[in-house]
Amino acid sequence: MAEKITARAENYAQWYIDIVLRAELADYAPVKGCMVIRPRGYALWEKMQASLDAMFKETGHVNAYFPLLIPESFIKREAEHVEGFAPELAVVTRAGGEELEEPLVIRPTSETIIWSMYKKWIQSYRDLPILMNQWVNVMRWEKRTRLFLRTTEFLWQEGHTAHASAEEAEEETLRILDVYRRFAEEYMAIPVLVGLKSDSERFAGAVRTYAIEAMMQDGKALQAGTSHFLGQNFAKAFDVTYQTQAGKLDHVWASSWGVSTRLIGALIMAHSDDKGLVIPPRLATTQVVIVPIFRNETKEQVLDYVKRFADTLRGRFSFVIDDDEANSPGWKFAEWEMRGVPVRIEVGPRDMDAKKVMIVRRDTGEKAAVSFDEGADRIASTLDDIQRSLFERAKDFRAKNTFEIEDYEKMKSIFEGEGGFVVSPWCGSAECEAKVKEDTKATLRVLPLNDGTATEAGGKCIVCGKDAAARATFAKAY
Amino acid sequence: MAEKITARAENYAQWYIDIVLRAELADYAPVKGCMVIRPRGYALWEKMQASLDAMFKETGHVNAYFPLLIPESFIKREAEHVEGFAPELAVVTRAGGEELEEPLVIRPTSETIIWSMYKKWIQSYRDLPILMNQWVNVMRWEKRTRLFLRTTEFLWQEGHTAHASAEEAEEETLRILDVYRRFAEEYMAIPVLVGLKSDSERFAGAVRTYAIEAMMQDGKALQAGTSHFLGQNFAKAFDVTYQTQAGKLDHVWASSWGVSTRLIGALIMAHSDDKGLVIPPRLATTQVVIVPIFRNETKEQVLDYVKRFADTLRGRFSFVIDDDEANSPGWKFAEWEMRGVPVRIEVGPRDMDAKKVMIVRRDTGEKAAVSFDEGADRIASTLDDIQRSLFERAKDFRAKNTFEIEDYEKMKSIFEGEGGFVVSPWCGSAECEAKVKEDTKATLRVLPLNDGTATEAGGKCIVCGKDAAARATFAKAY
Repeated sequence: MAEKITARAENYAQWYIDIVLRAELADYAPVKGCMVIRPRGYALWEKMQASLDAMFKETGHVNAYFPLLIPESFIKREAEHVEGFAPELAVVTRAGGEELEEPLVIRPTSETIIWSMYKKWIQSYRDLPILMNQWVNVMRWEKRTRLFLRTTEFLWQEGHTAHASAEEAEEETLRILDVYRRFAEEYMAIPVLVGLKSDSERFAGAVRTYAIEAMMQDGKALQAGTSHFLGQNFAKAFDVTYQTQAGKLDHVWASSWGVSTRLIGALIMAHSDDKGLVIPPRLATTQVVIVPIFRNETKEQVLDYVKRFADTLRGRFSFVIDDDEANSPGWKFAEWEMRGVPVRIEVGPRDMDAKKVMIVRRDTGEKAAVSFDEGADRIASTLDDIQRSLFERAKDFRAKNTFEIEDYEKMKSIFEGEGGFVVSPWCGSAECEAKVKEDTKATLRVLPLNDGTATEAGGKCIVCGKDAAARATFAKAY
Repeated sequence: MAEKITARAENYAQWYIDIVLRAELADYAPVKGCMVIRPRGYALWEKMQASLDAMFKETGHVNAYFPLLIPESFIKREAEHVEGFAPELAVVTRAGGEELEEPLVIRPTSETIIWSMYKKWIQSYRDLPILMNQWVNVMRWEKRTRLFLRTTEFLWQEGHTAHASAEEAEEETLRILDVYRRFAEEYMAIPVLVGLKSDSERFAGAVRTYAIEAMMQDGKALQAGTSHFLGQNFAKAFDVTYQTQAGKLDHVWASSWGVSTRLIGALIMAHSDDKGLVIPPRLATTQVVIVPIFRNETKEQVLDYVKRFADTLRGRFSFVIDDDEANSPGWKFAEWEMRGVPVRIEVGPRDMDAKKVMIVRRDTGEKAAVSFDEGADRIASTLDDIQRSLFERAKDFRAKNTFEIEDYEKMKSIFEGEGGFVVSPWCGSAECEAKVKEDTKATLRVLPLNDGTATEAGGKCIVCGKDAAARATFAKAY
C-alpha cells in the first residue's frame, strides 16, 4: 500500500477522505467544489442506480430527460423556491459567442422546468397521474464541499409526479419514502429513521418534506434521501390546471423526491474501518477476490487448482483472481481489504493438498477452511451473512448512540461529548428548534414515523417546558 | 388519432417532426434549441445504452464521471480544439451570487478536463492503458436545431482512452468503430459505411477521425458515430508523459469516440413510414401489443382467452394488452402502429372459436392467423424476421441510391435530383472537396473502409482530373 489510511480515532474526517482517494472512488476536479467520480466509485453508483431504477419501475414510474438549463425567470416563479436556491445558482450568461438576453441557470433541481412542460401535457384527469423520474447531474454552488457528501455538481435521480388529488400525491410521497428506506436497509445495509422534516428544514417550495436519516460512525446524522409533498405550489406557479371528472378546473397536485451520489459517502461512513472500504455484498461489483499463494515449484499446480475452483463460482458471483506476481500475498490482502471486497479466498499449497480453500470475511476478518466442493455454497452463505451482519451492527451502533432525553442540560452535554441521536419532546416552535441549534450545533433531523416515537408525544418541550407536540430526533449532521 | 402525420412524399422534414411529436418521443423545451426527451423516447435511449454499454464493458472499458464545467483556459490549450469549439460554447460567468474569476464552459466534449486528470493519474507504462467512458449530457450552441438530430444539449457517451503507443491507440479507435458498426447494423438494423473522414471534417484536435455513415430515406447521409485517433495532441497540451518500459519519458497516445441521442433520429429516419414509427424488435420496449375485439356479449370470453394467451408470452416478450373500452379497435391499430410496436395480436370471437390469434407485422402489414399453441413461437420468429428484413430493406435502399460516378456533371445532376451516395475518385485535395460542396451542397462523408472502394483508388479525380488518391463517398448530410 502506498499511503496508510488515517485511523478513525485519530481524525475521522481525514479517515473518510483517505478512503475515498486511496480506494480511487473519486478525486478532486480542477473546478472548485467539483469531483471526478473514478471507475470504482462510479461502479458503486451504477449498482445503486440499477437497484433503485428497478424499484421505481416496479412502482409504475418511467424515466425521461429534461434540459440542463432553466430560464432564470422560471426559478423566480415560486417565491420560496427562489429564496432557497438563488444563492447557490450557477448562471450561463454567454453562449454561442453572444450575451444571452435572459440568463440561464444550471438546474439545481428541476421542478420549474418540468412543471413548465406539465402545463403543456396536462389538460384533463385522464392525463394524470404522471409518474416521471430522471437520472441527471445538478449543480448547487456550495461554499464548503466534501467529496460525495457535498459537491458543487452531483449526480442524482429526481422524481416529479403529478396527481388529481392531495391524497394521491401524499400517498406517492410516502410510497417513495418507503422505497428509499428499503433501498437503504436492504441494499446499503444502513438502518434509517423515516420521518417528517420541521418547517425550517423543508424543501424550498414544498408543503411537507419527508426524509430518511442515517447515523454515521461518528454519531452524526446524514440525510440520505428526501421526498416532498409539493401541494399545488408548482402547479399554481406554472398555472397547471386539469379538468376533473366532474368537469371543473383544479390545480394539479405534486410530489418530488431524490437521492444522490451522497449515498456513496453514506455507505463509506456507515461501514468502513481503519483498513479501508467495507462494501455490502449486494452493492459490491467484485464480491470475491481469489489470491493464490505459491512458490516457483508449486506455481503451476496452485494456479491450476485456483482456476478449477473459480470455475465453480462462474455465473454465481462476480470475482477476480489476483495472480499478479509483482506483489506479495500480504500486500494483496491489504489492498483488497482496502478496496472493500467482501470475501477473500486464499489458496496455498497446503489448502490444495487438503482439497480446501480458505474463506476470509472482510467485515470481521474471520477465516474458515472449507472443502473445495463446499466452497461456492459457503461463499454464498458468507455473503448473505455479511450483508445481514453489517445491517445488524449498524443498528446496534445506532441503538447504543440514541438517547431518550428530557433534560436540556443533559442534551447539551451529549452534544458536547460523543454525540449521537437525541430523542426529546418538542413543542413544535421554530424558536426552540433554533435554540437547540445555537446551543449545541445539533439540528432537528426528523419527527420519526417508523419507531413510534412521533406519535407518543406527551411530556414537556425539552427547551421551553411547554406541552410537547411531538418527540423529535436531534443530531449534528453532515 | 389526434393529428395526422404528414406523408414523406409531401414534406419529409415535417413527416419527421410529426413522428417525434405524435409518438411522444421528444418535445420542444423552453430554452431555444433544447429538447425534452419524453418517456417513450428515453426508453429507446435506455435500450441503446444498455446494449452499447455491455459492448464497451466486454471490450474492457469502465465508466466514470467527469465534471460538467471546464475552465475556459483548458479549452484553449489545444489550438485546433478551441478553434473548433469556441463558437459553440455556453459559458458560466456567475455562480453563488458572484462573478467568477475564470469563466467556466459547459462541456461540449470532455477531452480537456479528462486529460487534465490523466496527468495526475498516469506516471508509468504500468498505468496504461486507461479505457474510460462516460454517459453524460453535453452542450453545443447550435444555430439551427432539429429534435434529436441537432440540439443544443444532447446526451451521449464519450470514451477517452490513453495508450503507450500509437499502434495501440489506433487499434482502439478502430475497435470502437467496429462496435459502433455492429450496434448500428445488429440492433438498429441500419447498414453503415465505415470510413475515414477527410481533413476538413476531422474532429478539432484529432489526427484522424473515423465515422459510421447511414443513409436516410431521403437519400441524405447521417453521421451516426465517430471515433478519433488523437495522437499525442492532448497529452502534449496537458503535458501528460509516462515512463516507458525502457525507462524513457514519452507523451501518451489517445483515442476518443462517441455516439449520441442523434441515433434516435437516425432510427426514425431509417425505418419509419407514413403511419408513424417503425422500431426494430431488438430496441422496442414494447414488442407486442394485444388488441382484444369484442361486443358486450363476447367480452368476458374474449378477455379471458386473451389473458390465457398472454400467459404464454410472459417472460419471453415485452407486451401490453390494450383493453381500454374508450377506444375502438381501429383507433388502437392506428395508434400502436404510429408508436412503432413491431407485432400486433388481434383476437376477436372468431379467432377465439377457431382457437387462433391473428399476428400482424408493423413493417409490412402482413397478417397471419396462427393457432393458440403456436402463437408464442410465431411471434418469436416474426420478430426475428422483422429485425432482419428491416436491415435488408435499408441495405437494398442504400444500394439503389448509391452511384459510382466518374463524371462531374453527372454528379451534379444527381445532387440536383433525388440525391443519394455518390462514390467517386478524388485527388485528396481540400480544394476539390470544397468545390463539390459549393456546387452541390454535398460533402465528402467518408473514404469507406468496409466496401473495398477506398483501396481501389485508380481513375482521375472527378473534379480536377488529376490522379485519384482514393474513392470517396459524397452525399448531402444531416
